[in-house]
Amino acid sequence: MTLPATLQHELSDLFGDGWLISPSERVAYAFDNSRREALPDAVALPTTRAQVQALVRACRAHRVPVVARGRGTNTTGASVPVDGGIVVSFERMDRILAVRPGDRCAVVEPGVLNGDLQAALRPHGLFWPPDPTSAAFSTVGGNLACNAGGPRAVKYGASRDNVLALTAVTGSGELIICGTATTKGSTGYDLHRLLVGSEGTLALIVEASLRLTPTPMARRALRAIYRDVSSAAQAVARLMAQPVTPSMLEFMDADAVRLARDVGGADLPHDAGALLMIEADGDEELLPYAIEALMAAAEGDGLVSLDDAADDAAREKLWAARKALSPSLRTLAPGKINEDVVVPVSRIPHLVDGVQALSREFALPIVCFGHAGNGNLHVNLMYHPNDVEQSARAHAAMARVFALTLSLGGTLSGEHGIGLAKRDFMPQAVSAPTLALMRQVKQVFDPDGILNPGKLLPP
Amino acid sequence: MTLPATLQHELSDLFGDGWLISPSERVAYAFDNSRREALPDAVALPTTRAQVQALVRACRAHRVPVVARGRGTNTTGASVPVDGGIVVSFERMDRILAVRPGDRCAVVEPGVLNGDLQAALRPHGLFWPPDPTSAAFSTVGGNLACNAGGPRAVKYGASRDNVLALTAVTGSGELIICGTATTKGSTGYDLHRLLVGSEGTLALIVEASLRLTPTPMARRALRAIYRDVSSAAQAVARLMAQPVTPSMLEFMDADAVRLARDVGGADLPHDAGALLMIEADGDEELLPYAIEALMAAAEGDGLVSLDDAADDAAREKLWAARKALSPSLRTLAPGKINEDVVVPVSRIPHLVDGVQALSREFALPIVCFGHAGNGNLHVNLMYHPNDVEQSARAHAAMARVFALTLSLGGTLSGEHGIGLAKRDFMPQAVSAPTLALMRQVKQVFDPDGILNPGKLLPP
Repeated sequence: MTLPATLQHELSDLFGDGWLISPSERVAYAFDNSRREALPDAVALPTTRAQVQALVRACRAHRVPVVARGRGTNTTGASVPVDGGIVVSFERMDRILAVRPGDRCAVVEPGVLNGDLQAALRPHGLFWPPDPTSAAFSTVGGNLACNAGGPRAVKYGASRDNVLALTAVTGSGELIICGTATTKGSTGYDLHRLLVGSEGTLALIVEASLRLTPTPMARRALRAIYRDVSSAAQAVARLMAQPVTPSMLEFMDADAVRLARDVGGADLPHDAGALLMIEADGDEELLPYAIEALMAAAEGDGLVSLDDAADDAAREKLWAARKALSPSLRTLAPGKINEDVVVPVSRIPHLVDGVQALSREFALPIVCFGHAGNGNLHVNLMYHPNDVEQSARAHAAMARVFALTLSLGGTLSGEHGIGLAKRDFMPQAVSAPTLALMRQVKQVFDPDGILNPGKLLPP
Repeated sequence: MTLPATLQHELSDLFGDGWLISPSERVAYAFDNSRREALPDAVALPTTRAQVQALVRACRAHRVPVVARGRGTNTTGASVPVDGGIVVSFERMDRILAVRPGDRCAVVEPGVLNGDLQAALRPHGLFWPPDPTSAAFSTVGGNLACNAGGPRAVKYGASRDNVLALTAVTGSGELIICGTATTKGSTGYDLHRLLVGSEGTLALIVEASLRLTPTPMARRALRAIYRDVSSAAQAVARLMAQPVTPSMLEFMDADAVRLARDVGGADLPHDAGALLMIEADGDEELLPYAIEALMAAAEGDGLVSLDDAADDAAREKLWAARKALSPSLRTLAPGKINEDVVVPVSRIPHLVDGVQALSREFALPIVCFGHAGNGNLHVNLMYHPNDVEQSARAHAAMARVFALTLSLGGTLSGEHGIGLAKRDFMPQAVSAPTLALMRQVKQVFDPDGILNPGKLLPP
């Protein structure tokens, strides 16, 4: 599409040098980490909420799509402007407006980077729990849009659990203030948690009051190796049923362990059927007791070895093995479908067994690792994207992974969201009346369907 | 109103002995703990979700109000059928359908009592965090409808923070399944947290998957007495800014302390300007460290005494003083307006100072105590209800307490909800566009406005 001339003039006047129309500038806003790509007709870089309101109102008058964007680190196509229109990048609204330690609250604009926020909070002895791998270069607004999590979510929750209030602009250009900057509230409908995870389809967040957590003084990690996936999964259930909640509980299947060892160079044995990384945090004096409790829970049938990585260096080495996984995967095949399905913790063995069966059935490597404490596994399906037959097979296998997940009482996404990638699976995951209600909720917030059209809800 | 004969016959057939129409039976469902009262035209006691669906559809056809009810312990009039119609009491849907310790999840029907659920969870070493004073005789469904909290919420969250998925019947009789029984999820719009706190105005909850927490092995409490409210409030902010989150952090102002001592018989000094009850929980071995951290934070300017109630008996005695407060209040005056306003923790001193000024201005006793760690104070305004002038004065003072709360960045309710009692203050607490959006959301879930009409949203 081409933008109507009157809209183009109006918005050019409104945004000045924050209005980008040359193809070379726009191309930087055309894609996200899903590797999908679509060129926006223009890019707006607002500095105020009033600009966002004026933009939405103008776009609504012309029925032009508005796609909110953090830094495009999301993995689902949610920030790719597939219907054209205007990308609203919040890179110039990146201020930390207030940090109030006694209230455990920070007030921020959406464009602040997660990592910059954490750095600003450190002197106050506080942190914001969401810790996606992209934290150093993803925005708080983007984290909220996807309900981003990370390893820490098992103890501290994901984005939705760590937001107190949001100010946002709806699809009709209204400024709404949802929630209050208090840790408790029962005043009308909870609209702010509804906006979290809505991927810019309901409103554009222009300010967030975040719930902060005091930084634990120290951390300590365990590395537990099991004979097989089933033993490791049973240990996960034991670990989550006792009072000391781990601050991290990461799982790797045998293929992931092999990759971390052979490609990532981690010091890992050859007989590992599965591995758990278990971390505790807290006061220095308390940690030995927490570690003792976690060790007791980690022990059980099928445990091969249990190492206490008492010093920082040992913990970092262990963590490096986990981080080495994503690049290592490419040694198996150049193409990767990485989905972040989630099941109840007790069903992890069924999920991993089922995925291994699908790997054999479809003759494709599938590697599983991820946030076991939440039952949130990253299922990585490896294939050659230039091989049409194999590519079709990979996508067919992924559909079966989703079906398996749903049959186990789980759901499509734990922390990446739906976007384009999983949109067409929504009718399997969400019942027809519930999906109809979601569409009507969308209609209330965005009567003309201009906010991030085509995402999250199937056409 | 009188029920249409066809509806009456249809529902009588549907519910059999679960259809109550005699006035003596209906009167038991006419009131809640707000002391408001209105007789329903009939009472239905469903045993299945299919019955709930059929009832809602039939009532929709006849535009007859449907008012969901737990045990009526709520304080806002939310379960009083002021427009007549049918009260749906969930007392026969009170089963615990599953407890899955490894998933930290329980699946329940809405009518199960909070206390009965806790008893069933105890052998599993788990609990459900919401702990309203009414826990022994209030239902999980009612707790969810109000977003009930309690003292424990400071560490473990309120109802909304402890629910994974809900099955519910909307105002059009559709069965919706919102959320998944997993501790993480990013699959479409978060409708289940939207239902929590909606007071039966959006849908009737017929099943809930609850998030459970492992029971701490031990608890220990501190009693801190301060020279004045300001010193105590500063201690609250210090306590909440350090890493050991108390499992309870209760506040009493000087009047509340005096009542607990003189009427409740608690062993408390005469020079207390304010009191904090601070509790830690955790492993027996960890508790001394936690208590040490909390003692360090409690210490500071204005601290008069700090006692470590190391044994259960001492802790229970301390807690008895807190529980003795509500009955003791009646010695000041027979009438009580008890509101549960909430402010950011750092604004507690301003709230309590402002309330004391209002007490002088309106020449009425106002006693404050409550959940300081959440900034959630119960403000008790005492008056003689038969004295028309004093009664008007009390209500005028309460309006000023709300205005003060809102000016401090707080909100009307932390855990009781809005119902009828605070409905007319919603336009002050929630901006016009946000309130308009809430109305439209209500319209989506309940197109004919039959679900609990007149509650939460002002006419």
